[in-house]
Amino acid sequence: MRIAALAGGIGGSRFLRGLLHAVPDAEVTVIGNTADDIILHGLHVSPDLDTVMYTLGGGAHEEQGWGRADESFTVAEELAAYGAHPQWFTLGDRDIATHLVRTQMLGAGYPLSAVTEALCDRWLRGTPGPGVRLLPMTDDRVETHVVIADSGEPRAIHFQEWWVRLHAAVPAERIVLAGIESAAPAPGVLDAIHSADVIVLPPSNPVVSIGPILSVAGVRDAVRASDAPVVGVSPVIGGAPVRGMADAVLRTIGVDVSAAGVAGLFADILDGWLVDTADAGAVQGIEKNGILCRAVPLLMTDLEATAAMAREALDLVGHSP
Amino acid sequence: MRIAALAGGIGGSRFLRGLLHAVPDAEVTVIGNTADDIILHGLHVSPDLDTVMYTLGGGAHEEQGWGRADESFTVAEELAAYGAHPQWFTLGDRDIATHLVRTQMLGAGYPLSAVTEALCDRWLRGTPGPGVRLLPMTDDRVETHVVIADSGEPRAIHFQEWWVRLHAAVPAERIVLAGIESAAPAPGVLDAIHSADVIVLPPSNPVVSIGPILSVAGVRDAVRASDAPVVGVSPVIGGAPVRGMADAVLRTIGVDVSAAGVAGLFADILDGWLVDTADAGAVQGIEKNGILCRAVPLLMTDLEATAAMAREALDLVGHSP
Repeated sequence: MRIAALAGGIGGSRFLRGLLHAVPDAEVTVIGNTADDIILHGLHVSPDLDTVMYTLGGGAHEEQGWGRADESFTVAEELAAYGAHPQWFTLGDRDIATHLVRTQMLGAGYPLSAVTEALCDRWLRGTPGPGVRLLPMTDDRVETHVVIADSGEPRAIHFQEWWVRLHAAVPAERIVLAGIESAAPAPGVLDAIHSADVIVLPPSNPVVSIGPILSVAGVRDAVRASDAPVVGVSPVIGGAPVRGMADAVLRTIGVDVSAAGVAGLFADILDGWLVDTADAGAVQGIEKNGILCRAVPLLMTDLEATAAMAREALDLVGHSP
Repeated sequence: MRIAALAGGIGGSRFLRGLLHAVPDAEVTVIGNTADDIILHGLHVSPDLDTVMYTLGGGAHEEQGWGRADESFTVAEELAAYGAHPQWFTLGDRDIATHLVRTQMLGAGYPLSAVTEALCDRWLRGTPGPGVRLLPMTDDRVETHVVIADSGEPRAIHFQEWWVRLHAAVPAERIVLAGIESAAPAPGVLDAIHSADVIVLPPSNPVVSIGPILSVAGVRDAVRASDAPVVGVSPVIGGAPVRGMADAVLRTIGVDVSAAGVAGLFADILDGWLVDTADAGAVQGIEKNGILCRAVPLLMTDLEATAAMAREALDLVGHSP
């Protein structure tokens, strides 16, 4: 079975790990969000790609969900001692090696997709089964900016600054995907969608993770036009995001913070939508919109529970593993 | 007293620390060698400038002489896990922060002299007395290359590769200062020489540390033309370098590995030359060339011993502290 998955960071990565456990013989292509990418201390950081890579490769910090296990912060301490900015984003030592390799390869002219492949050669080569491929959504620069008005006049800041420094506590007036108009899908992205047997939307942030991927020229059309069923997993349970601050960005774009609200965002592409048992009451309404819907426990408490979710998602669209 | 010092790495730094201890009220400008600089993993590394900075700022690894105290190598381990090259030069985590700041500032268009000043703001601000300034010899790119013929045809490799990877064990056929013809002294270098009361050559490598500094356009002439006496400390004791592998590069340029041999390299600029008691026999010969010479213990075993050496050097040219 060939699966194409559109993924953000933590939620997406955890779900993908469950998916790979549920269907170890599947050929999975992950199309990762790069709109969170940021240059810090001259280093090109790709938070979502790295979270997928570390999580599937067994190098992620398990409790935290992002960053490396057994991480240290010596470089960051020294950067702070020099007074280097920004100080609201702390890069770990192990993580910095990834960014050094990426930055150097990008500087030498390699596209992000080639860099990602090189980095994944370390992390994903040993994955069981036919393997998993990680592609950036685009090789072009796209950056999610958040327009805030904390001090009167609206100003746009990098998504990471809003998320990490401001903890999404300052209302986002608008979300802008800078560069999206001229971004082309990275090599392999459209092919993976065209040739998939199933297309999966893991429980990632619908606005700033799945949203940017679908906004890259041709991607949403390709997903819509695909013969493969598209099945998604709600990142919202009982009116609140499972993790992260998806509620803040949903409010910004005027979408109800609910399993049905998120389903509505993807109504044109979804064939199936998995909601939590807490949202069983929403199933009928979602099915009225022509989307198959099922309520099952959606908490990714452990690998088995997550694999069960993945099986339910595939089963919902007739691809029971 | 205004002192200008031309310095390489370990030997130079240790001597400078003794000098500052001997004359705490001196205004010292250190002109540092940058021909050892190298780009590693996309980072601009300035080994000699950093050794001076860390040593005088109290951040150096005391036994080792270079690098940071209490250093760790997490980033380097991870770079190796990615298969990143070169692997013969291991950058420490604390050290990497310095290179990140430097690389970022250089990338933003600041000259190395401005970058060095910014970095030294952390390390040298607290130095007792009127303070010590560290200037790179040039803001232009100069690189010491070593021509070796290990596998038949001669080929040029970076000095660091010869020194660190090959341990200077492969004979150097020639030493080339790539870029030296078009290198201009960094801002402040000629001024420091012109306005000095004493010019000091610490016991640094005469060929690849002091040599490049003097080879920057106008520097050797300025030192020769200066009214200030020029006093040097022999890096060779009893026919062998005190540390490092100066003998190998001295042989390459056909200079006798002796206190007198090194004095001869600087005969046009030296007013005084301090040799070790082991080389007392060479004093007369050196003085015949019009250079004041004195034999004193030259081992920089501790700060007091090093300060005593510095006092002897200054005293030799009539500037007893």
